[in-house]
Amino acid sequence: MTTDRLPESMRVAVLAEPGSIVMESRPVPTPAAGEVLIEVRSVGVCGSDTHYYDHGRIGDLVVTGPLVLGHESAGVIVAVGTGVDPARVGERVAIEPGVPCRSCAQCLGGHYNLCPDMAFHATPPIDGTLAEYVVHPSSFAFSLPDSVSLDEGALLEPLSVGIWACRRAGVAPGVRVLVTGAGPVGQLAAQVAVAFGASEVVVADVNAHRLSVASSLGATRTVDVSSTSLAEAYAGRPGPEVVLECSGHEGSTQAAIRVAAPAGRVVLIGMGGDTLGLPLGEVQNRELWVTGVFRYANTWPTAIDLVASGRVTLRPLATGHFDLEGTEGALTAARTDPQAIKSIIHPVATAEVTAG
Amino acid sequence: MTTDRLPESMRVAVLAEPGSIVMESRPVPTPAAGEVLIEVRSVGVCGSDTHYYDHGRIGDLVVTGPLVLGHESAGVIVAVGTGVDPARVGERVAIEPGVPCRSCAQCLGGHYNLCPDMAFHATPPIDGTLAEYVVHPSSFAFSLPDSVSLDEGALLEPLSVGIWACRRAGVAPGVRVLVTGAGPVGQLAAQVAVAFGASEVVVADVNAHRLSVASSLGATRTVDVSSTSLAEAYAGRPGPEVVLECSGHEGSTQAAIRVAAPAGRVVLIGMGGDTLGLPLGEVQNRELWVTGVFRYANTWPTAIDLVASGRVTLRPLATGHFDLEGTEGALTAARTDPQAIKSIIHPVATAEVTAG
Amino acid sequence: MTTDRLPESMRVAVLAEPGSIVMESRPVPTPAAGEVLIEVRSVGVCGSDTHYYDHGRIGDLVVTGPLVLGHESAGVIVAVGTGVDPARVGERVAIEPGVPCRSCAQCLGGHYNLCPDMAFHATPPIDGTLAEYVVHPSSFAFSLPDSVSLDEGALLEPLSVGIWACRRAGVAPGVRVLVTGAGPVGQLAAQVAVAFGASEVVVADVNAHRLSVASSLGATRTVDVSSTSLAEAYAGRPGPEVVLECSGHEGSTQAAIRVAAPAGRVVLIGMGGDTLGLPLGEVQNRELWVTGVFRYANTWPTAIDLVASGRVTLRPLATGHFDLEGTEGALTAARTDPQAIKSIIHPVATAEVTAG
Amino acid sequence: MTTDRLPESMRVAVLAEPGSIVMESRPVPTPAAGEVLIEVRSVGVCGSDTHYYDHGRIGDLVVTGPLVLGHESAGVIVAVGTGVDPARVGERVAIEPGVPCRSCAQCLGGHYNLCPDMAFHATPPIDGTLAEYVVHPSSFAFSLPDSVSLDEGALLEPLSVGIWACRRAGVAPGVRVLVTGAGPVGQLAAQVAVAFGASEVVVADVNAHRLSVASSLGATRTVDVSSTSLAEAYAGRPGPEVVLECSGHEGSTQAAIRVAAPAGRVVLIGMGGDTLGLPLGEVQNRELWVTGVFRYANTWPTAIDLVASGRVTLRPLATGHFDLEGTEGALTAARTDPQAIKSIIHPVATAEVTAG
Repeated sequence: MTTDRLPESMRVAVLAEPGSIVMESRPVPTPAAGEVLIEVRSVGVCGSDTHYYDHGRIGDLVVTGPLVLGHESAGVIVAVGTGVDPARVGERVAIEPGVPCRSCAQCLGGHYNLCPDMAFHATPPIDGTLAEYVVHPSSFAFSLPDSVSLDEGALLEPLSVGIWACRRAGVAPGVRVLVTGAGPVGQLAAQVAVAFGASEVVVADVNAHRLSVASSLGATRTVDVSSTSLAEAYAGRPGPEVVLECSGHEGSTQAAIRVAAPAGRVVLIGMGGDTLGLPLGEVQNRELWVTGVFRYANTWPTAIDLVASGRVTLRPLATGHFDLEGTEGALTAARTDPQAIKSIIHPVATAEVTAG
Repeated sequence: MTTDRLPESMRVAVLAEPGSIVMESRPVPTPAAGEVLIEVRSVGVCGSDTHYYDHGRIGDLVVTGPLVLGHESAGVIVAVGTGVDPARVGERVAIEPGVPCRSCAQCLGGHYNLCPDMAFHATPPIDGTLAEYVVHPSSFAFSLPDSVSLDEGALLEPLSVGIWACRRAGVAPGVRVLVTGAGPVGQLAAQVAVAFGASEVVVADVNAHRLSVASSLGATRTVDVSSTSLAEAYAGRPGPEVVLECSGHEGSTQAAIRVAAPAGRVVLIGMGGDTLGLPLGEVQNRELWVTGVFRYANTWPTAIDLVASGRVTLRPLATGHFDLEGTEGALTAARTDPQAIKSIIHPVATAEVTAG
Repeated sequence: MTTDRLPESMRVAVLAEPGSIVMESRPVPTPAAGEVLIEVRSVGVCGSDTHYYDHGRIGDLVVTGPLVLGHESAGVIVAVGTGVDPARVGERVAIEPGVPCRSCAQCLGGHYNLCPDMAFHATPPIDGTLAEYVVHPSSFAFSLPDSVSLDEGALLEPLSVGIWACRRAGVAPGVRVLVTGAGPVGQLAAQVAVAFGASEVVVADVNAHRLSVASSLGATRTVDVSSTSLAEAYAGRPGPEVVLECSGHEGSTQAAIRVAAPAGRVVLIGMGGDTLGLPLGEVQNRELWVTGVFRYANTWPTAIDLVASGRVTLRPLATGHFDLEGTEGALTAARTDPQAIKSIIHPVATAEVTAG
Repeated sequence: MTTDRLPESMRVAVLAEPGSIVMESRPVPTPAAGEVLIEVRSVGVCGSDTHYYDHGRIGDLVVTGPLVLGHESAGVIVAVGTGVDPARVGERVAIEPGVPCRSCAQCLGGHYNLCPDMAFHATPPIDGTLAEYVVHPSSFAFSLPDSVSLDEGALLEPLSVGIWACRRAGVAPGVRVLVTGAGPVGQLAAQVAVAFGASEVVVADVNAHRLSVASSLGATRTVDVSSTSLAEAYAGRPGPEVVLECSGHEGSTQAAIRVAAPAGRVVLIGMGGDTLGLPLGEVQNRELWVTGVFRYANTWPTAIDLVASGRVTLRPLATGHFDLEGTEGALTAARTDPQAIKSIIHPVATAEVTAG
């Protein structure tokens, strides 16, 4: 079921080898049963994209052949496979990039993000979305209300990480939260914590500019840890019941664990070294729960709601716009522009994007 | 309200300084409102007692004056304070040794074990139970059924650690459990895991004798990690959803974390060094929950039930019996007798104890 | 420890018999250990107060002697008992009116609201707060920040019911909520649901004025069930995952259950008849959880935070102010004034109250 | 991928109209991708099968055409579709009869049993397993260990109901359980409660024989409610924290709710009338959670473990064996034989079945 004449071929930005993105022409794919074909309008650049571009690998995940990057994506449905309501054609959608097997114990148990057979955009060998068209399961393409732009739709992916972390940590009214690290993920996690009703959201970083952004987005207090340690910041005050660790920095993580309240939850979001020196007595004596997050599950509807209702603001994060041919520039924007937060690539341009 | 003529003074074994237990005579205490006076019949020796005896401290907890050791205790109520049912006199009871403030957020929230104002037997400066009599809140003295001996009553305390760990970890039918370290706590944790219905309870240690005891107490499989690594033991098999780490050994802990199943829970029970090298990627990529236990809360009724119903066996743990004057021998029994597991001290002897 | 000269006697409004409030002079009580003496400034009138005034009983709870009403209270600490920090004198506090035994399984398990030995203000035979002074445990007198008035402090009590209901029901971002019944409790429950981040808060009632108030306080949609059934209102839309039933009306409850989403939680807050006709197949086929709330536990800190942060607005609820001698008028205000929501009685008047 | 020559047609027992089972010959189906073809060896008869046979409907579920009954099933894999490991051919398997869509919010959220698009054996219009062969998704065909017979494999289905109920209710060591109704489901629920470690499992019924069976299967106490009311049975004793209601009888349900402990969970398993008169004050004042179960999710591995480990005994339940032509006799066996509990139909006979 197709809206109207689709082209036979499309442009794709391919990571041919580390440091080299080349444009290719590939056939436009056909949606299988249960799938939709999406014209890709907005793709956010993630640190993992840049890392693959620079190093050709992330830990055990090695790029062994040409790989299409991009997994923060939104677009418009232009065709549907069998079993999908043809009325979906024309829908503006955000793409949840991981497709689980749906048959294993993890999937059937409700944490499909831990599925060992997950196919995830731009995780080798699965191609991502830096292409004019992608096919995707209909149930992982979420309809966007008019009030949510396609750029925002793409950024629901990093927002989902924050939602997932706050859910796992039990953020709720009456809960005090500490966010360590005020990069994009930390900013989103802090905003989500506020939206979840946390009674206190403290954001810690060494970068005054980032802390000021955090304040403007709702943090109730900031701590510049270049001048004030967390121990000092919490002296005489009750510690956080939830730590959302977004820095990946061992010292910060340890300092955060030391101030965490009894029965607190510490969620390790930032990527760090292979091993974290965990202060054992702190974890035992206060019965802290320490965990990590691996992507997310069942977050898109909530993410859409948080943005549509204005509880979370994504627009300030999109600091640069590129077309598909500008992919390399988008991947490296943060190197030259200290103000850059998120680059958005537009494989297919639209009027809306310009306004976004 | 007193049963009959109580003596005015009693014998007490006091840790006068590291390495020196002296017998003293002290006045028999009087139960205040809500308290009971207990004639102490059985006291299990814990590693912490021996550690205070040897070193005068455990971490930040320093013995700065004379201290009565002993916190695994059972006895008979011989008097009650106002507000306590006089019918309790004569009851055989097990003592939950920690008395929380009952007013703070931790207490009112149901995890009173994290109360910052806890008064806990034999944790400085609170005296323990190596005395003929102790006073204790009535609600922390649990009536024992006839089928549970006073020696078993004393050992409900270490059993409670296993119960608390299994509760926190969510052990239940269908759950695979790995216990690392088969000392007294590991043996109890493994038994509790079986009693909680775990589908598989694997016990790992380097000591073949301990592993054979674990097998006899219900472990479904044992791994001698002196010859077989955990990685080998779990090769081709699903990993444990719950790890009960009782060894305090960093390498064992790391190996256990590496085999833990997705969404698994790792409970750090064993005391180890200040810092544990946590394999960060393992925790993040499989979203493991890592926590410790600090004593227990609300476990005595369950502990009594597990012993009374025969689901947990405590008698093989009591490997030596001592009178109060033999306290030093009890504290050091494990040094000379490799078969020794638990010493029981009997401040007041009874016929039952002989049989116990 | 007393601030300065306290009077020896005080005025108290006593329910002498149904329909008759008399003023009495009683000695000012002395705070025992762990208690504070509070000068009572603001007391909200609850439907239960009026019910005792009219009928002398609520179900099995029978007024058999003179009873002081009032359990929604705030005031100023004027003296403290032993063991309480004297610095508390002068603190503006809200009173949590129920004092549990702190020793039973319910108390130690974290749901002290279910304590069978609870002493609760204005629940026979425990006197309430319609007096110039009351004594109360220090840990149940919560310090108010300057931004929360004493009138608001009194209304934290009904607010706590809404918080407790939302906690039990798992209200959170992404959750759709239906509130049936827009009286004071329904209005508060709806506000709390919004503050907990619910993605949708629908309020249903037959009273257009109340629905308009609900809209102004944040409800995302209202349903006038005098003209539109809940079944119609939810036709073609996903049903609520949480129902907060505040009407006590059997038909409304049943209608709400019928539209509840799979795995939904239905909290029965409103008082109704002895028996509710539960649509069994609805509960079974969608595995709904149905429960009630009995007061609350551990809610005051969250309540204070919600008001101090402006997430919940209490001021519009206080529609009438009375002095202690005006108690009967306060109890019956709702009969003559259809706009009346909450009467506030001021046993001791203050400038702040006037402004409140 | 097929083991060897399969026949082209097979015998099927079809409910042609209420009260009439006819044998038909139908083509042997071919497994699609991800599916297996199972030779059906054992099918337990459920009350729902008999109800469809007698009445042609269960509530809103109406048999409008020929329907194959049977949903408690086990057999042997004889062929596999693409994407399934060919080594599965020859496996003895138990069949989880419901196949969810795997794409909706319920499926992705881990409670796939609430999937609105569930295809469930013998629920119109989906055919069941009273046939020589059925196709089924590989992931819903669970390999049986040698120690579990195919008859037991079939009975894992009703066992799953008990597991699911105990999981939802939080049955665990230290929890007191009351089972009302000692029919097949009640007997299984009670056994499961014991296996989950419940400290007390009381079974109530009016049938002395059933109560004696319950005792022999592990119930710690039985109550013959024809002579002793539940109120009497629990007088002076703590009430159950969990009620597993298996009678479908309103009076029993109400009596059970009245004795339930504070914060108790009441799971309505038995089918009853359209409406249950719920004692509202009991639910509110003790904050009981009342829910139902609708089938089960993620229970087969646990069910297999409970039977393989001997914690649950299924053999006494299989009281009659029939071949496919004897289907009508199997459906009506309970009418003439008061001792009959479960009829097992063997579409394909095997030596094992004779021994089972």
